[in-house]
Amino acid sequence: MPRIAYLGPSGTFTEMALDRLVAAGGFAGAVDRVGAASQPAALELVRREEAAGAVVPIESSVEGSVAATLDSLAQGRRLQIVGEVELPISFTVVARPGLARADVRTVAGYPVATAQVRHWLARELPDAESVLAASNAAAAELVAAGAADAGVSTALAGARLGLAVLADGVADVAAAVTRFVHVTLPTAAPPRTGTDRTSLVLLALPNEPGSLMRAFAEFATRGIDLTRIESRPTQTGLGSYRFHIDCVGHIDDPAIAEALKALHRLADVRYLGSWPATSSAGRPPPADDEAAGWLAGVRKGVEG
Amino acid sequence: MPRIAYLGPSGTFTEMALDRLVAAGGFAGAVDRVGAASQPAALELVRREEAAGAVVPIESSVEGSVAATLDSLAQGRRLQIVGEVELPISFTVVARPGLARADVRTVAGYPVATAQVRHWLARELPDAESVLAASNAAAAELVAAGAADAGVSTALAGARLGLAVLADGVADVAAAVTRFVHVTLPTAAPPRTGTDRTSLVLLALPNEPGSLMRAFAEFATRGIDLTRIESRPTQTGLGSYRFHIDCVGHIDDPAIAEALKALHRLADVRYLGSWPATSSAGRPPPADDEAAGWLAGVRKGVEG
Amino acid sequence: MPRIAYLGPSGTFTEMALDRLVAAGGFAGAVDRVGAASQPAALELVRREEAAGAVVPIESSVEGSVAATLDSLAQGRRLQIVGEVELPISFTVVARPGLARADVRTVAGYPVATAQVRHWLARELPDAESVLAASNAAAAELVAAGAADAGVSTALAGARLGLAVLADGVADVAAAVTRFVHVTLPTAAPPRTGTDRTSLVLLALPNEPGSLMRAFAEFATRGIDLTRIESRPTQTGLGSYRFHIDCVGHIDDPAIAEALKALHRLADVRYLGSWPATSSAGRPPPADDEAAGWLAGVRKGVEG
Amino acid sequence: MPRIAYLGPSGTFTEMALDRLVAAGGFAGAVDRVGAASQPAALELVRREEAAGAVVPIESSVEGSVAATLDSLAQGRRLQIVGEVELPISFTVVARPGLARADVRTVAGYPVATAQVRHWLARELPDAESVLAASNAAAAELVAAGAADAGVSTALAGARLGLAVLADGVADVAAAVTRFVHVTLPTAAPPRTGTDRTSLVLLALPNEPGSLMRAFAEFATRGIDLTRIESRPTQTGLGSYRFHIDCVGHIDDPAIAEALKALHRLADVRYLGSWPATSSAGRPPPADDEAAGWLAGVRKGVEG
Repeated sequence: MPRIAYLGPSGTFTEMALDRLVAAGGFAGAVDRVGAASQPAALELVRREEAAGAVVPIESSVEGSVAATLDSLAQGRRLQIVGEVELPISFTVVARPGLARADVRTVAGYPVATAQVRHWLARELPDAESVLAASNAAAAELVAAGAADAGVSTALAGARLGLAVLADGVADVAAAVTRFVHVTLPTAAPPRTGTDRTSLVLLALPNEPGSLMRAFAEFATRGIDLTRIESRPTQTGLGSYRFHIDCVGHIDDPAIAEALKALHRLADVRYLGSWPATSSAGRPPPADDEAAGWLAGVRKGVEG
Repeated sequence: MPRIAYLGPSGTFTEMALDRLVAAGGFAGAVDRVGAASQPAALELVRREEAAGAVVPIESSVEGSVAATLDSLAQGRRLQIVGEVELPISFTVVARPGLARADVRTVAGYPVATAQVRHWLARELPDAESVLAASNAAAAELVAAGAADAGVSTALAGARLGLAVLADGVADVAAAVTRFVHVTLPTAAPPRTGTDRTSLVLLALPNEPGSLMRAFAEFATRGIDLTRIESRPTQTGLGSYRFHIDCVGHIDDPAIAEALKALHRLADVRYLGSWPATSSAGRPPPADDEAAGWLAGVRKGVEG
Repeated sequence: MPRIAYLGPSGTFTEMALDRLVAAGGFAGAVDRVGAASQPAALELVRREEAAGAVVPIESSVEGSVAATLDSLAQGRRLQIVGEVELPISFTVVARPGLARADVRTVAGYPVATAQVRHWLARELPDAESVLAASNAAAAELVAAGAADAGVSTALAGARLGLAVLADGVADVAAAVTRFVHVTLPTAAPPRTGTDRTSLVLLALPNEPGSLMRAFAEFATRGIDLTRIESRPTQTGLGSYRFHIDCVGHIDDPAIAEALKALHRLADVRYLGSWPATSSAGRPPPADDEAAGWLAGVRKGVEG
Repeated sequence: MPRIAYLGPSGTFTEMALDRLVAAGGFAGAVDRVGAASQPAALELVRREEAAGAVVPIESSVEGSVAATLDSLAQGRRLQIVGEVELPISFTVVARPGLARADVRTVAGYPVATAQVRHWLARELPDAESVLAASNAAAAELVAAGAADAGVSTALAGARLGLAVLADGVADVAAAVTRFVHVTLPTAAPPRTGTDRTSLVLLALPNEPGSLMRAFAEFATRGIDLTRIESRPTQTGLGSYRFHIDCVGHIDDPAIAEALKALHRLADVRYLGSWPATSSAGRPPPADDEAAGWLAGVRKGVEG
């Protein structure tokens, strides 16, 4: 039974994402779960080979990229993304069993979560005071321990601790979604499906004007759609960045393979993997078959 | 005396940045300070004309862009950046007066700050337990209120509350710097200095392949250096972004003016201002004088 | 009455083009015609101010660019194109009066003309022998002088010499057209009409890979359509070229003006003029009015 | 003994180029020469399989591209260039034996040749009258037949007809060079040498703005040097062109192969061959070996 690290503690959205991946057959059976204190901590367990894989959030439709995940993937031993799952994000407001909504005086919440239900709290619990929690799961733990009357948490965390549900599906922004990725040591990519995502990091570009544009042009001229560009500081001072790039396609698409080679010639590039995209990833790169056949023909000297 | 909003409470790094701007003559005299609970809250005070300006952090050399600031600048009534200041970021660990370092059992800290001094805490206060604070200033307040023995805070906050200094200049990453910007209602940009920064947001691009590349090309072909590209979710689902772009130069540089016009024709673009850059901003765009003179000549029909 | 040089002798297609320009009011009245022995000779008369203008062929839909015209425009004192006319090219086969087609034994022709009626000659005069002539007009003169039975010439030349017409409108390629241009010393361009053509020469590009591409990109990013690219040798060895470029638009179109300035910064560029196009010249460059208004607004600090 | 067609008649520069190719071993032995009346006629003999190959001029450092050769290569059954030779072009002025220079009253010459020695004739034979000849070899034949006193011709033609040499190495432009190519039916290209030339024709581009630029970009982004761009009319009206493109490299260079495939996807492209360049052809495209190895590694899942 493979050990899989995830951003814990038990009951986080990340654990729910791990459940989905298990249900979808992503691990060929049951797994042994290891909660980690942070995204970098989860990924370090893989690097040290104390876990066979890790599940971490990488992007939220509300908050944007998860910086800690990107920064950890860009540094240290290379890791590879082999799968993804997207989870609609809505919170469950849990409370001590038997407590009426009118009696709630304090609400525990992880700041990121509290921010996403600000309007709901203002409308439904306008007089409750805010109590800081260290994670979504910790918010439920604070309720169970009596340190808060209610908590902005997950259904999973509330259920495990036997708490009551004050409200379910709570989210200021409807249709909030977070993407989680399954990360392993470097490996052959899962087979091309036709709706794939490829991710890479431009660790360092030549220090000359226009080098970032030239990198982007390697995608554009090959008809490859970029779906995400994220600059992250290299922490050597303001104005020095790494660029995380996601594009549509698979390393076994000739256009993607050619673009990767061209980027490798141009810059210090780290390949983060190709894997099936769960949501529509855009227009796949042009297929090569007809053009390759034509090239083989003229190489041999056929007519036409 | 103009009212200037800042990311409070009193004693934050942002207030220290405001002090610097005042000292540098950025407000032509003293100001009336208004602490706001968040970056969006500070900017809203300007939009509602309850403050003449706001000072907010926009980018950290360690954490990257400040998402709340970018998202607020991109939405609602247009605002304009008219100045900046860069502040070296290091923390002051404050404690109740008279308490020896060996007796510290609990350390309050804002999570972002705690993350930046993690190595120092592990080495110097390995046995102290973490207490969550809502801001750097709040960490000092928790110490003053007796809720924590020590706090990761700022020099300004500790001094105001009469706390002792356990350690000064604490930062895991040396040379951490944060840039803060001075924001007002739309106005004429401060005069061109030759080392300027221009910022804009691509709110929406035409929904066709390559439109982002075409936007970037408007800068590249005019010899304009891009210094930052940041994608932020539009919150309408995964994969839909706004792009924040900083470049070297001023709206009164002809190359910048031409690029802005071209982007306006191509996309829904929001201009966020041109202002003097405090740190080296890169290579300024090519001057226009000689070429403009040549063009005027051939237009009139001169020889050569 | 202005002296206008043209590619002579009397009776050439170029003189017919000159007639058209006169009829269209291109010279504000009658002109004094000066036949010149070649395109460069006609242009030299303008350079030496012995003629006020010249009319020369610049491009044929069958033969392509007229190299002698391009090479002369690229060298020496700068000249400027101020107008154009397009002439359908078909030949008139003239003969001595009274001679039957069956009795034609020799046909005089300028090689370029003979090449354009090769199929007609093979079908209609299969047994006639070819006699070289120095121009289309000279072919008629050879007939008038008795040196050939028939000649491939122009209607104008045949009529002036009192020759019979064996066949009119003779051309292997239907719809052959030649463009002729009116050239003067440098002057202000005729006013913008909305369907204009601008012509320039890249005399020398920086000796580095990609400099030609960068020149082309100055047009592409500004939405300017290129309608012709012609490389001509600089005569300093194989592989060294000048590039003649025609594009859609007028020097008073902001996009064209910007592109010209950008090219001047990049390369040694010679402006050859902007003038009304007689045939559809393609898609004009984007107008600037709305974008310029937007820019002026944000410069002053308007909302929105 | 293979039959090789060339632009005749006997004694032309093209036959001299054929001699060079034979001497260099280009035909693996002696050849049976067939003079053809024109470049298209020579190439048609290959298309009809009445000749195994053809030698035709393709570009002159003085006159530019040879339009008849380009137009014929672009149309009809596909042919392939398999070799080239470059010949310094200077003329031999031949005369009837025994005739003194002062007694020369008439000079025969092919117009292209006469144009290249115009200054010499004005200086050395200022009073001689011009007589038209149909080719350089024909100029010597006119002298041998008594129809002209002297002729602008080639050393080879004069020697075969037993004429005297009035002057050798005559050329207004020093260092004039013409490139001749060896053309066959489609075949595998000669092996890559590292200094190769590849030639192709863009027969038709998609009828949308910027499609020519996109075609050029396929070379630029792959680091391929273009050495020649020639637009030729398609003869369907002014403004419609084919583009002949020469670039540095061989179809077996991965960058060239990729660019060819990309152009095939974009446009109607005809491959004209890859062959060893006799003169320096520019900077070869980047080699692929290291990048291909890196790609193979990450595909399998290696570290790093």
